[in-house]
Amino acid sequence: MNCLSKPKVFEKPIGAKDYLPHAVAKLRQVERQVLDCMASWGYEQIITPTMEYYDTVGVASSTSDQKLFKLLNNRGTTLVLRSDMTAPIARVVSSLLKEVAFPLRLSYHSNVFRSIEEEAGREAEFFQTGVELVGDASPEADAEMVALAIASLQAAGVKRFKIAIGHVGFLNGLFEEMLSGQSEAQEQLKACLLGRDYVGYRERLAQLELPETTRRELEAILRLRGGEEVCRQALELSGNATAQASIRHLCQIWEVLEAYGVRDQVLIDLTMIGDFSYYTGMTFEGYAADLGFPVVSGGRYDNLLQQFGRPAPATGFAIKTTRILDLVEGEREAGPRRVLIGYDDDSRAEALTAAGARRAAGEIAVTSKVSDWDAWDREQGAFDEVLSLDSRTRGGAGR
Amino acid sequence: MNCLSKPKVFEKPIGAKDYLPHAVAKLRQVERQVLDCMASWGYEQIITPTMEYYDTVGVASSTSDQKLFKLLNNRGTTLVLRSDMTAPIARVVSSLLKEVAFPLRLSYHSNVFRSIEEEAGREAEFFQTGVELVGDASPEADAEMVALAIASLQAAGVKRFKIAIGHVGFLNGLFEEMLSGQSEAQEQLKACLLGRDYVGYRERLAQLELPETTRRELEAILRLRGGEEVCRQALELSGNATAQASIRHLCQIWEVLEAYGVRDQVLIDLTMIGDFSYYTGMTFEGYAADLGFPVVSGGRYDNLLQQFGRPAPATGFAIKTTRILDLVEGEREAGPRRVLIGYDDDSRAEALTAAGARRAAGEIAVTSKVSDWDAWDREQGAFDEVLSLDSRTRGGAGR
Repeated sequence: MNCLSKPKVFEKPIGAKDYLPHAVAKLRQVERQVLDCMASWGYEQIITPTMEYYDTVGVASSTSDQKLFKLLNNRGTTLVLRSDMTAPIARVVSSLLKEVAFPLRLSYHSNVFRSIEEEAGREAEFFQTGVELVGDASPEADAEMVALAIASLQAAGVKRFKIAIGHVGFLNGLFEEMLSGQSEAQEQLKACLLGRDYVGYRERLAQLELPETTRRELEAILRLRGGEEVCRQALELSGNATAQASIRHLCQIWEVLEAYGVRDQVLIDLTMIGDFSYYTGMTFEGYAADLGFPVVSGGRYDNLLQQFGRPAPATGFAIKTTRILDLVEGEREAGPRRVLIGYDDDSRAEALTAAGARRAAGEIAVTSKVSDWDAWDREQGAFDEVLSLDSRTRGGAGR
Repeated sequence: MNCLSKPKVFEKPIGAKDYLPHAVAKLRQVERQVLDCMASWGYEQIITPTMEYYDTVGVASSTSDQKLFKLLNNRGTTLVLRSDMTAPIARVVSSLLKEVAFPLRLSYHSNVFRSIEEEAGREAEFFQTGVELVGDASPEADAEMVALAIASLQAAGVKRFKIAIGHVGFLNGLFEEMLSGQSEAQEQLKACLLGRDYVGYRERLAQLELPETTRRELEAILRLRGGEEVCRQALELSGNATAQASIRHLCQIWEVLEAYGVRDQVLIDLTMIGDFSYYTGMTFEGYAADLGFPVVSGGRYDNLLQQFGRPAPATGFAIKTTRILDLVEGEREAGPRRVLIGYDDDSRAEALTAAGARRAAGEIAVTSKVSDWDAWDREQGAFDEVLSLDSRTRGGAGR
């Protein structure tokens, strides 16, 4: 289609998606299972508005400006369609919930919006199911996020996945030490790591004028992925205080994850950079087999709440619910029995009463007024039983 | 607040609402109960995007232009935030579902958006739970809408309510007969009826130059509210073919509603004008005790589908879900048992394992790392049980 031509009447906007009954049933199933899991960990659900002020939640959201959907309200104020739930929840924690003591455990299932022009094929609106744990700075809180993300993905029915954990302080500290004053080079290298472009990372590194040992050490971080031995290697690599503190924090989280018994699902990846600029500590991403994008991402954001007037440490994660639907199986059980009841003028009351009784008994009952019994399409939809209340014969029997 | 001043950081836009956990639990309960009810009548759920093209769904939606939230996408095309679900479903029925035979029974639970400037206090975003029955023009289909609306409100827990049914063809036919050529007067009188402003209706009528019998007859329609006797009175009032056909159709619907056994919850109100311009036949509104606005509204719209290329009769209704929350009681049952488990470094693995077991058993378990047992706030949140796994004493016992 020529992008300047008028849309056809049956079109929906690019990046928008309709979910038909089969897909909705699956989405609803995952939504329920994940929210139930989060509830069992003490997380309570909230709902916030789709539109927020650009100047507050929009700016705080850390979605790049050109990816925000903006609109003007009647007063000429710029609104945005929420691009994530972290900033809106920070707003609620600092306003409606400001008298409620920390720690606060909140969950959500919500659609979020990101304009996508350049990323063809991605959806502009998708569902996330996630949590925020506000008011707890401990490694135990970080570990709770990782362990709950694992439990949530399992509850959703995702079978094979790995969670990679990292810490924004490690790369920041290391780069500050080794590439001091070269902020452009730092940004470029980080961009490569964010895109998992390790070839590009090496190429960029080769272009920089650096002592050979520094270059080797900066290349060595690409190997900092694995189990707890990675922490030891990282501690040897950098004497920078920020980097060292980050690694020690990560070691503590690892220890708690061992106590959760989830070590097999987790690996340490110090090359990981969370895609949200507000992350300040541990970040993590979950990858499922055969999918090239994370199915869950999260991390610590200790500076966001203060933008809303209630400074507090916080951490959280979001499962990309609509993206994992292909990974999970729909419920196998047959579901309620479906019955179609055909009737005519003389059997109407009988039919409607019978339908009501079937529904009360947990079945699905559809009634259909039949004007010509011979032409009646008994096959409409898929029914387990068809009742023909044909008053000419009174012999209405199931097929 | 001065409406020109910048919003404070903790504000949400006017007309937007946050739902805290208690309200969310209630909303989710109503959502589930109503959708389950609709499913038992054979209605299958669909989800459509929040944004639609202005030129198609926006124009078809019958929400007045200034009440639509509009925005531009990256290509410069005008989008709207959906203002109802009827037009989006008409689009889906005519595109993705175009090969599926009628009748189609679809349900939804969805947020919709209406800009509100003049209606202070109303929400710009609210939830609707509803159905559309597409491809069935029979009085039985109209009656199914009314009966299902009643069953849905009952499922939601709304106790006292009445459904008023009317027919757009009656007033159209009557006015066309008695006020032929006076389209402005017709519109003004209809506006009075839409706003239930009967005083204004009489005043406007008094200003018109009309034969005394005509004036009396037009005043008489204000009394056309009640049981089936109203149909008889209406048939005597107007000889107009459209009005007569409308009344006869309404009588047939009434008969089916008797067979459903719901006559006590229904009254006929021939002064009722559905607030959607696309209605073509029977319309209805449900009023709950003590509420000044309808909690459900619906009607027949036989001309909408053809705008999307698949002409078909259709009818449907929407419950204003967020508006009925105050009418229904939250679930009384206690909910899962909540346990708080405090631990220290030495009891960590034990605590996390215990929490996992509690969750698997259906309880809510929150774990808390305690650095100072004497200062520990065991009262955080409301718990049914507090476990102190204090490794100094190993005497951790429930309170």
